[in-house]
Amino acid sequence: MATLKVPSSVPSPLEDADRLRKAFVGWGTDEKTIVSILGHRTASQRMEIRRVYKELFGEELFTSLDKEISGDFERIVLLWTFHPAERDAFLANEAARKWNPSNRVLIEVACARSSGQLFAARQAYHARYKRSLEEDVAAHTTGDFRKLLVPLVSAFRYEGEEVNKTLAKSEAKILHEKISDKGYNDEELIRIITTRSKAQLLATFNHYNDQFGHPINKDLKSDPKDEYLAALRATIRCFTCPAKYFEKVVRFAINKLGTDEYALTRVITTRAEVDLQEIKDVYQQRNSVAMDHAVSGETSGDYKSMLLALLGHEEA
Amino acid sequence: MATLKVPSSVPSPLEDADRLRKAFVGWGTDEKTIVSILGHRTASQRMEIRRVYKELFGEELFTSLDKEISGDFERIVLLWTFHPAERDAFLANEAARKWNPSNRVLIEVACARSSGQLFAARQAYHARYKRSLEEDVAAHTTGDFRKLLVPLVSAFRYEGEEVNKTLAKSEAKILHEKISDKGYNDEELIRIITTRSKAQLLATFNHYNDQFGHPINKDLKSDPKDEYLAALRATIRCFTCPAKYFEKVVRFAINKLGTDEYALTRVITTRAEVDLQEIKDVYQQRNSVAMDHAVSGETSGDYKSMLLALLGHEEA
Repeated sequence: MATLKVPSSVPSPLEDADRLRKAFVGWGTDEKTIVSILGHRTASQRMEIRRVYKELFGEELFTSLDKEISGDFERIVLLWTFHPAERDAFLANEAARKWNPSNRVLIEVACARSSGQLFAARQAYHARYKRSLEEDVAAHTTGDFRKLLVPLVSAFRYEGEEVNKTLAKSEAKILHEKISDKGYNDEELIRIITTRSKAQLLATFNHYNDQFGHPINKDLKSDPKDEYLAALRATIRCFTCPAKYFEKVVRFAINKLGTDEYALTRVITTRAEVDLQEIKDVYQQRNSVAMDHAVSGETSGDYKSMLLALLGHEEA
Repeated sequence: MATLKVPSSVPSPLEDADRLRKAFVGWGTDEKTIVSILGHRTASQRMEIRRVYKELFGEELFTSLDKEISGDFERIVLLWTFHPAERDAFLANEAARKWNPSNRVLIEVACARSSGQLFAARQAYHARYKRSLEEDVAAHTTGDFRKLLVPLVSAFRYEGEEVNKTLAKSEAKILHEKISDKGYNDEELIRIITTRSKAQLLATFNHYNDQFGHPINKDLKSDPKDEYLAALRATIRCFTCPAKYFEKVVRFAINKLGTDEYALTRVITTRAEVDLQEIKDVYQQRNSVAMDHAVSGETSGDYKSMLLALLGHEEA
């Protein structure tokens, strides 16, 4: 469930664009208005506001925002204002260009989206960067990470609920054999994880657990410091329990010495219209404190206001 | 240029469906009518006929065709009547299931189509087989072929004309190094061929030729019997000169002891609305005989009539 709160009576895109323009011009910027409008509009409403803004003022809304605001507040407003597919393309491009093994963005874009959404991100990537997503991922990553990430971002998984139980059994066995032999980069293991449908993978992982007595992710934790193993676990968690996966990202982002605003902003903007409510519920259970409260304690100013708006904390 | 000839005044889908039905019922089947209608309609017209046929007679046109005709004639009529994306999905599924190293169908579907067409084939594959194309290719192929084919069928290449010349130079050098070392299955070589845009690859191959004195495909012919090298050459030819590639497929299909009807049917049905005229021109130049004439000499009956219709030989 989404957390985004949209007012029961939404102003026209024209009114919104006009109020945003007024928030930018003159002495200083009226950040409250930016949050009160953009922080309470759906993706399609934001697209309309962008279109009308450009028509009215001959300038992209992004250009105006870029001039008027800065820092963490700028990043969250820009990321949020993107169309979700554009946002995924932007985040994936950043992750590919500044590739490092602990970066999980490519895995999230590939595995915590529907097949259609991943494909929309690949289309947006063409439009924005004049290259393909898989091309950049392949060019910037190496070794085992490349073997895993290129097929992950190139996949167009079948999304039906059909499950082949015989296949789930035989592939659980393959996974177990490879993992027991520490063949974490084995071609067959990567083939299964990067091509099978989510429904089929769930059946395979359940069978793995039933048959071999451990969840697959426990067996993939032989060396907790190995970043490739962590990437495999993240992949599996994005398929099997995205809300738990994202709760952990938020928890680590908040608990870090010096909050990880990049991670926090990414999770909040990419999930506010998807399942941020489930993520908040898991957070509350896991940490005995509300996510809004934790976020509020670690952030400040307009950035905090925008986070809380997307967390559904305040009405517009 | 397409060879398909559509009459200047096309009957309504209703008339066509009705005439087809009449060709099926009663004593024997009227194959001439099948050729005269389906052999002279565009993809969208054929889709309309299918839709109307189903509405009128409560049976899929494919089911009726399957009952009434057989052999090579059946195969060409069914393949042709498919939507191009469905046809690609069908051919790719057949090729994956009955995988053998000399099969070039997956390469054709991946490399001799636009990015959008390949994606449409992947969507049609979901709908028809309840699995993904890359999933089946990965499960049925092995070794070097798998390393090449899975990323080929998963690609969504950028299609702009932009070329990075510096990159073309540096990647031509990488390709030359790997090929000189017989590293034909090298990760970098496969990365370049499976992810770069066609425009970028053309620049890279041109640079390769200029810098190292041979076309890349000549250097990939060190062992003419190696099927993996042949697959690499086919991939490159599908990008650089599809008409020449398909002319060769047709030439081999015709010159074989016992015509290869599968290959002939595949090329004619997949190219008749694309570039069969160019393929015919290359064939005439290369063999000093018209392709229509050669096809006519090697085939017979209704199959021959349908081939010639798609070759543009007769008006409806």
